[in-house]
Amino acid sequence: MAREVIKELPGFSILYLGDTARTPYGDKSPEAVVRYALEDAEWLIEHGAKILVVACNTMSAVAIDALRDRFSLPIFDVIRPTVEEAIRISTLKRVGIIGTRATIQSKIYEKTIRAVNPDTDVFSAACPLFVPLVEEGWAESSEARSIAGKYLNELKSKRIDTLILGCTHYPFLKSVIASQMGRMALIDSSRAVVRHMRAFLDAHPQITDQLLKGNRHEFYLTDTAAHYNEIASRWVGFPIGFKKAVLNSLPAVEGK
Amino acid sequence: MAREVIKELPGFSILYLGDTARTPYGDKSPEAVVRYALEDAEWLIEHGAKILVVACNTMSAVAIDALRDRFSLPIFDVIRPTVEEAIRISTLKRVGIIGTRATIQSKIYEKTIRAVNPDTDVFSAACPLFVPLVEEGWAESSEARSIAGKYLNELKSKRIDTLILGCTHYPFLKSVIASQMGRMALIDSSRAVVRHMRAFLDAHPQITDQLLKGNRHEFYLTDTAAHYNEIASRWVGFPIGFKKAVLNSLPAVEGK
Repeated sequence: MAREVIKELPGFSILYLGDTARTPYGDKSPEAVVRYALEDAEWLIEHGAKILVVACNTMSAVAIDALRDRFSLPIFDVIRPTVEEAIRISTLKRVGIIGTRATIQSKIYEKTIRAVNPDTDVFSAACPLFVPLVEEGWAESSEARSIAGKYLNELKSKRIDTLILGCTHYPFLKSVIASQMGRMALIDSSRAVVRHMRAFLDAHPQITDQLLKGNRHEFYLTDTAAHYNEIASRWVGFPIGFKKAVLNSLPAVEGK
Repeated sequence: MAREVIKELPGFSILYLGDTARTPYGDKSPEAVVRYALEDAEWLIEHGAKILVVACNTMSAVAIDALRDRFSLPIFDVIRPTVEEAIRISTLKRVGIIGTRATIQSKIYEKTIRAVNPDTDVFSAACPLFVPLVEEGWAESSEARSIAGKYLNELKSKRIDTLILGCTHYPFLKSVIASQMGRMALIDSSRAVVRHMRAFLDAHPQITDQLLKGNRHEFYLTDTAAHYNEIASRWVGFPIGFKKAVLNSLPAVEGK
């Protein structure tokens, strides 16, 4: 997602927070995800964020209402823009969704699709191993192909023409998913959100004026392990040195 | 581990705490794991624990000194008993270790093995996808076999005769690992620890007297998601209903 924002909205500065002390969120309860979302958002706003992008489908799925209730700045979630793009693209009005267990169980995509276009049929599959596969750097492996085959087998039989990649990790598996699903539009939620943000910024110059310009990006994690710099640099395409974010429930460790 | 304690030390009551709000620990920094370990241990002691079993290799690898510095009750870690059993069993004195990235990077097994028997050669491999595979219920799948093949390939060439399963999830993958590694002793750290505990309890009747008898087990999680009851019940072999543990940094959610 950071990569897409940097590429598609050049000139703006990103303040990035990865909650690595508590991720992955995909198997956690809605209560836990809401708790972490509120704390993460508070940290970002205290550190100067003027717009919030919830660049995680699980958090968007279960915590977006709590975030909008608590904070008054513009908050972008990944669900609505992704759904609008999927409905626009699907000719058969048969859309598939893949995501983490928490995202799929929330049924947020089904609800949002029915709200936007009640005539669209929706089919979904949870793919819990996709995130660890991507984080292991095995997105192009034969193991990834085999696991994708297992997860997507039922979805393949549903005659969908559009598949939502409902997790920001999944675009790394695009070629594996495409080869399983055959001819089909794959909707990358990051791109849909960034397009939506650009339209919003064009329409709200008074907000755009408040944003920090000049590509002064800062990248923070709630837990810094050595291999994250390497993985993230590979993902965004330039070297990243993460700094440690100190949150209320994750205070600095004594003597560090 | 709970299953082994219940089976091998019948009559004692277990107070179990799974830190599901922050797990998996395997890719987190030592600082984060120490922080969570101290908070988890404090909760267990406040709720009546008289003996602590650190039933997680990652936590044993990086947090055991911090735990023993802070708390005075008997604390069992999985590393030392497992190492002693591996050295006792290995004829060639060539031992392999598999574990999470955090466990392997800590080099705790190498250090402990060298301390117990400096003539033993040690070889290790991190297997980050094994935990998610087990949690997905795919321990016996062809995907698990293929992934095991990839992780264990180099270790196979080292002429080891004993392999430590350095993560409490790994015994679920025993048949897959055995078929990859060929004739070899596989050391299950849970069993080694429980044997060690039994010997300790036999030698310390004054501590044994303090323990709660009668199989009044209680199972707590820091985050309760619906699928945990099902997974855990399958693992221990009887129905488990988890209760929610409220920790200082994870207070009860308002209105719940």
